[in-house]
Amino acid sequence: MLKIPEHQVAGHQAGDGKLGPLVDDSGHFYKPLQDGKRGSRELAFYTSFSSNPNIPDNIRRFFPAYYGTQILEASDGSGPCPHLVLEDVVSKYILPCIMDIKIGSRTWYPQASEDYIQRCLKKDRETTSLSLGFRICGFQVYGGKQSEFWKPEKKFFQGLSADDVRLALRKFVSSNLSAESNLSPASCFASSVYDGSNGILAQLLELKKWFEDQTMYHFNSCSVLMVYEKEKLLKGEASGAVVKLVDFAHVMESGGVIDHNFLGGLCSLIKFISEILECPNDYRNKDCLQDSGRSYDFVGNGIRE
Amino acid sequence: MLKIPEHQVAGHQAGDGKLGPLVDDSGHFYKPLQDGKRGSRELAFYTSFSSNPNIPDNIRRFFPAYYGTQILEASDGSGPCPHLVLEDVVSKYILPCIMDIKIGSRTWYPQASEDYIQRCLKKDRETTSLSLGFRICGFQVYGGKQSEFWKPEKKFFQGLSADDVRLALRKFVSSNLSAESNLSPASCFASSVYDGSNGILAQLLELKKWFEDQTMYHFNSCSVLMVYEKEKLLKGEASGAVVKLVDFAHVMESGGVIDHNFLGGLCSLIKFISEILECPNDYRNKDCLQDSGRSYDFVGNGIRE
Repeated sequence: MLKIPEHQVAGHQAGDGKLGPLVDDSGHFYKPLQDGKRGSRELAFYTSFSSNPNIPDNIRRFFPAYYGTQILEASDGSGPCPHLVLEDVVSKYILPCIMDIKIGSRTWYPQASEDYIQRCLKKDRETTSLSLGFRICGFQVYGGKQSEFWKPEKKFFQGLSADDVRLALRKFVSSNLSAESNLSPASCFASSVYDGSNGILAQLLELKKWFEDQTMYHFNSCSVLMVYEKEKLLKGEASGAVVKLVDFAHVMESGGVIDHNFLGGLCSLIKFISEILECPNDYRNKDCLQDSGRSYDFVGNGIRE
Repeated sequence: MLKIPEHQVAGHQAGDGKLGPLVDDSGHFYKPLQDGKRGSRELAFYTSFSSNPNIPDNIRRFFPAYYGTQILEASDGSGPCPHLVLEDVVSKYILPCIMDIKIGSRTWYPQASEDYIQRCLKKDRETTSLSLGFRICGFQVYGGKQSEFWKPEKKFFQGLSADDVRLALRKFVSSNLSAESNLSPASCFASSVYDGSNGILAQLLELKKWFEDQTMYHFNSCSVLMVYEKEKLLKGEASGAVVKLVDFAHVMESGGVIDHNFLGGLCSLIKFISEILECPNDYRNKDCLQDSGRSYDFVGNGIRE
């Protein structure tokens, strides 16, 4: 029985006659092949990656498993359409907290059409992509009680500032989702989710190490998915935090060069998460800001201005 | 006695009635303050940086020492003009081999004017900045004999490919500058210059570590200067290799975010130099290419194309 995914936080979504991915009960995620080059590029990536002997095992786990393609009735009723059969990365979670972060200060690439480049560039400048090297595209988070749940609408993610992003990364591991706690979210799950040898930060650092060296693929406009299990945290168990890379419609050959655009954005995200772990209680704490050098006074004007 | 620098490889140069930097015999480099915001920003940067208690000593050495400003007769005869008084980083070298590499896939920044942004973007796309995360702006190198010397004209640096950049980074540490050796330069000084605890690579890695953490400055359109002493190498002594950052007319406040654009480009340069050390003899050696994953077959087309 195919159904619409319950826990999708970004990207094209099925339902209301729209084309989007489907899932089944045995942990598969069926992603319709996108039109034209996007679909063929994503398929080419999964085909290449899944049979590439140069991918270390510790890196392979950051990618959804790939089970080939299958022709299925499209979710928009447009008839049979080829779908990528992938691992449904959240199928085993009961209360999955999920954040989708598009990595890179540049989401376009030299080979794209001029029109596509200009549209991407505009969006990169309007969002935090350009300034932070990444942008949050969507998330859902369960609160301290099972009844609490927060999944902002698309509109929420337009025009976020650096501080909004800091706050979102804190809220994502907070036990208190109420509006009043906006300024100082109690990030009581920060260490369980972000820290430790199995935490998000350790996984991002492992990924970073690979990106410093790999010259096979350039992951343009690709997302890091951070997922953990709130159900387990509430029971006092380990968070089951995982990092996955998703969305490979714009992956390109590298020309023998590292993906410096992805790597730079990944390092920026790593720094944001590190700062939360350094000051888990209050991100506007002055001592914290000074330690991290952020309050340093540097005014870009002098003589002859 | 002020004079025109003998070993400048990029940037505005004095002479023929043009405005440019001057040097004296006691190791000072006098850089005329550029017009408008550029000049004031570079001054603001040197003032801020030189008195910033949060700069570690091992990082400070990567920047030219700053001795204040001085009003001097401009080199273009336009009258008295304020100059930055800086350390002349090549004053003690007899046969300095120098390469100037502008770091970052993006040389513009959000605060700049639309006109400036478009001009920079165009140049970033026309050069290797976009694809490699850096571009070579100039270099000079002495060969195995003192009479051999290569300092390409500005034109040489337009339209370089990734392979041209690989070759230039090999030629920079080669003992053989002749044209016939283009395909396989004998990079016999590669390990003396790039490798070892005092080599260029170790210094770039130290700089990288700082850039992963520092959230004080964004070094837009800034260059890494790599310098070593050919005279010493020919005598069998250590290369005296140093890395310096120069050109701070576009340095900005960071907004509490790491300089992911500079960091990404720096990591790419590090990878290029690492590859030379892995295969010093022949960069088209197939085994080398396969080891580094560069020859991996990934074709971005599949069904529905």
